[in-house]
Amino acid sequence: MGMLREEKRKIFREAGADALFLEPDFLRRYFTGFYSTDGYVVVTESACYFVADPRYFEAAEKALKGTDVTVVAGAYAQALELVQTCKMLGVPFPFITLSSAEALRGKGFALVDCMPALKKAMEIKTERELSLIQTACNVAEDALLSILPEIKEGMTESEVAALLEYRMRQLGASGTSFETIVAFGANSSVPHHETGETKLKFGDIVLIDFGCKVEGYCSDCTRTFLFGDDGKHEEFKKVYGEVLKAHELVKETVKAGMTGKEADEVARGSLRQAGLDKYFTHSLGHGIGLMIHEYPTLSPRGEEVLRDGMVFSDEPGVYVAGKYGVRIEDSCFMKDGKVQTFMHKTDRNLIVL
Amino acid sequence: MGMLREEKRKIFREAGADALFLEPDFLRRYFTGFYSTDGYVVVTESACYFVADPRYFEAAEKALKGTDVTVVAGAYAQALELVQTCKMLGVPFPFITLSSAEALRGKGFALVDCMPALKKAMEIKTERELSLIQTACNVAEDALLSILPEIKEGMTESEVAALLEYRMRQLGASGTSFETIVAFGANSSVPHHETGETKLKFGDIVLIDFGCKVEGYCSDCTRTFLFGDDGKHEEFKKVYGEVLKAHELVKETVKAGMTGKEADEVARGSLRQAGLDKYFTHSLGHGIGLMIHEYPTLSPRGEEVLRDGMVFSDEPGVYVAGKYGVRIEDSCFMKDGKVQTFMHKTDRNLIVL
Repeated sequence: MGMLREEKRKIFREAGADALFLEPDFLRRYFTGFYSTDGYVVVTESACYFVADPRYFEAAEKALKGTDVTVVAGAYAQALELVQTCKMLGVPFPFITLSSAEALRGKGFALVDCMPALKKAMEIKTERELSLIQTACNVAEDALLSILPEIKEGMTESEVAALLEYRMRQLGASGTSFETIVAFGANSSVPHHETGETKLKFGDIVLIDFGCKVEGYCSDCTRTFLFGDDGKHEEFKKVYGEVLKAHELVKETVKAGMTGKEADEVARGSLRQAGLDKYFTHSLGHGIGLMIHEYPTLSPRGEEVLRDGMVFSDEPGVYVAGKYGVRIEDSCFMKDGKVQTFMHKTDRNLIVL
Repeated sequence: MGMLREEKRKIFREAGADALFLEPDFLRRYFTGFYSTDGYVVVTESACYFVADPRYFEAAEKALKGTDVTVVAGAYAQALELVQTCKMLGVPFPFITLSSAEALRGKGFALVDCMPALKKAMEIKTERELSLIQTACNVAEDALLSILPEIKEGMTESEVAALLEYRMRQLGASGTSFETIVAFGANSSVPHHETGETKLKFGDIVLIDFGCKVEGYCSDCTRTFLFGDDGKHEEFKKVYGEVLKAHELVKETVKAGMTGKEADEVARGSLRQAGLDKYFTHSLGHGIGLMIHEYPTLSPRGEEVLRDGMVFSDEPGVYVAGKYGVRIEDSCFMKDGKVQTFMHKTDRNLIVL
């Protein structure tokens, strides 16, 4: 068994528990890097255990040899054995069910929320994590580029979404990082439009918000197009220019040391100057990692300070109900104090398909 | 507002709470039939409320007109207002996070688990539910039939899975009901094999376990094929015949009034006679509905009595580690005291692709 790595020890200490007892998929993956649909991770002052059932034990032993993770054969009962001398368990309150919590309390454990400590660690990405997110972004962009020529009049939103998801899988994604949003025409004015059976017509706006997972890590991207130019989109084009301006201004002027709130205000202020801020009805961005919505939060209430290694979306949008919507979104990260984008393949300028 | 329907009133009474306070997607869908990614359902002695935010309010009002569901504009705060005179809230312990539970307890509510009452109601399907599951099964089978001619030597498991999922979406599914399992060759001996980059070779076994969702309802199906017959599969073919025999015996002899344990024993006993029961390492079946794993449980520990309206899988399997696996699975339901299958399109006899 290798020595417990410093970042895990730090999380353990901050949590203030006798042991961390972790069940959610994304946390097992965070602590071990190993994919499994079941199992437990137990972290103590000096060790990190992965409790794997027969389906995963052999593969886990092989994959985790030489790391600081000790693989233990078993399931819930074996995980409990590892913490039998503990009184206080650290569990992630937002990701443990009340049933699981009551079961642990019923065995005499006190529970403390370890999510604040985890959040603090998880929002700063390692080089390996950044590189996986980069791959997930590359796959997403390549997939989008490959389907654009296949988008034809009469296709439904669902068909475009299904095609894009299929292409992302063909290019190496394990799946989507969230339900793909494809919105045609006025549907684009609904920020979380439910992709449906609306058919594509000449002159329609096409808004696509999509992402995929690679080894558990997510990408997130939005592009807004015109499907042919019917000459009736002067207002839309002007607004597109303003959203793009706000999007780029964030990349140019947001720096490490600013808060999420200040970053949000960069985009919101830019749209305010154009009289469009009241149509920017959501936050500028959210953290991205093993989950599609992580920390930091770039919103009017985002108090966190942005730091090197953080990954977040830059996604200003303008939505005029019943008419049109524009959103331009890159997955970005902070490096050397500046915002860098993961997305180098697709154009952010307005494309007429 | 329409009168609260009898089945909801019954759940309410069985739960023994002053109100049910429900957040999970599948429960919102169960009580309203309406799709949403957010919102709350509150059930009292006389009413069922759906609290919908601005994204869903208008559509929900329209869809639920004339039903027993009252749509209320708002979010968490408005849902809480509806239960402000209550002391005891019924929440589903296995589907509420500890964070949400602690928040409610912090506001002075006592919590009781309403899942036993919900489970009892949800395991008996209405005609509408049976019809949606039938559609989800039709889509799954049609998709499988359409991709079989496209399976070629050299394709990876992931490619086959991606193609099948794409086809299910094209045919009207909103997505998969679980991660599609495609296992080539000896990978078929792992019941929950992680679909990967293994390439298809002549003579390989091809095991596909898949399903999709239609209006929230799931289908679940497994078929095992041979990709060309290299003449080395005599043992496999014999085992295939035994698994099929066990599968069909369940359909022929399991009746309403038997327990899940007795149903499981029909298949297990049949495999025992062939000396194969020790390779049948999982349960015979599980309930299917808005979730892919529901009640009843058809396993050696299944005490529940099978009744008309229940939907469950019939999926015996034999797995010889490192060599081969066979699983044959239909989604089935109980009607007029007998087991009926939803799956009429694909052959259960061994097909050589």
